[in-house]
Amino acid sequence: MSQTTTQQLNDVDLAAVGALVGSIQADPSAAQTTWAAHVTWDRAFQSSSRVRTFSPVSSDEPAGLGGDDTAANPVEQLLGALGNCLAVGYAANATLAGIEIDALRIDVKGDVDLHVFLGLKEGHAGFSGISADVTLETSAPREEVDALHAKVLATSPVGHTLRTAVPVEVNLA
Amino acid sequence: MSQTTTQQLNDVDLAAVGALVGSIQADPSAAQTTWAAHVTWDRAFQSSSRVRTFSPVSSDEPAGLGGDDTAANPVEQLLGALGNCLAVGYAANATLAGIEIDALRIDVKGDVDLHVFLGLKEGHAGFSGISADVTLETSAPREEVDALHAKVLATSPVGHTLRTAVPVEVNLA
Repeated sequence: MSQTTTQQLNDVDLAAVGALVGSIQADPSAAQTTWAAHVTWDRAFQSSSRVRTFSPVSSDEPAGLGGDDTAANPVEQLLGALGNCLAVGYAANATLAGIEIDALRIDVKGDVDLHVFLGLKEGHAGFSGISADVTLETSAPREEVDALHAKVLATSPVGHTLRTAVPVEVNLA
Repeated sequence: MSQTTTQQLNDVDLAAVGALVGSIQADPSAAQTTWAAHVTWDRAFQSSSRVRTFSPVSSDEPAGLGGDDTAANPVEQLLGALGNCLAVGYAANATLAGIEIDALRIDVKGDVDLHVFLGLKEGHAGFSGISADVTLETSAPREEVDALHAKVLATSPVGHTLRTAVPVEVNLA
């Protein structure tokens, strides 16, 4: 009975995570995963990203950047991906630590100098820095929450991808 | 009249881009932009990202990773952001070069070793590498298309963010 209760903490299915850990411990190659997204240009600065069987998600640019302002733009999507990744990290690691999350909000922001994107300068076109403010409501003691925070930072796939120089190869058919 | 025709190439509003370039040339600080996304944890591994006034976009994990498999996960969102960013780059730079795009598709994929995310190992939790296959249908000569491709790679905000180690600060309130 207590196991059932633990599995329901934060609604997280710990059994599924445990099964994955078990299969990776039995066969480390099971940890090697490949992910994909398929983007189609629609018109102007509008495009759509399709992942697996989910409905396509739209992308556009604000009017000031020449777009039609119908959806979040790619740099905003990237910030959202970071926030969502941190949210999974808090949910997973809080559950493992027996911490109940009452509410969790992550506000992500970052700065881009548009000179390079607009062809006015050569150099780094991307974010110069990104910051996330995490608001976690829980009755857990502060030291447990700090340990949780450290664990999330040490294990975030999107966080580590941004913090690290990752090889990106773009091939034109 | 010919200017009107040029402005409609690929449906891109070159006048808006030109106005932005002009305002940045007059005041370089206008190129310093800040972008944001606001993520709320919903339950389990589900969260939502809100950007400006657009509808929230859902995030989840596949069942094998302990999620409910209701939406693309954060690493897939990141790949989509890259593809969408490249699409804007091709649309903008093709239009500037007078190249008409008949169709454009960008298939993005990347590899993640789940050991670190699952706490089975310390180290890099993110993508070990990302690749994008670009299929551009156009009647433009190959050398113009190659020059366009080089320009896109040199100016992509998301591409450069991934290729570079960007400072990411995560603050817990």
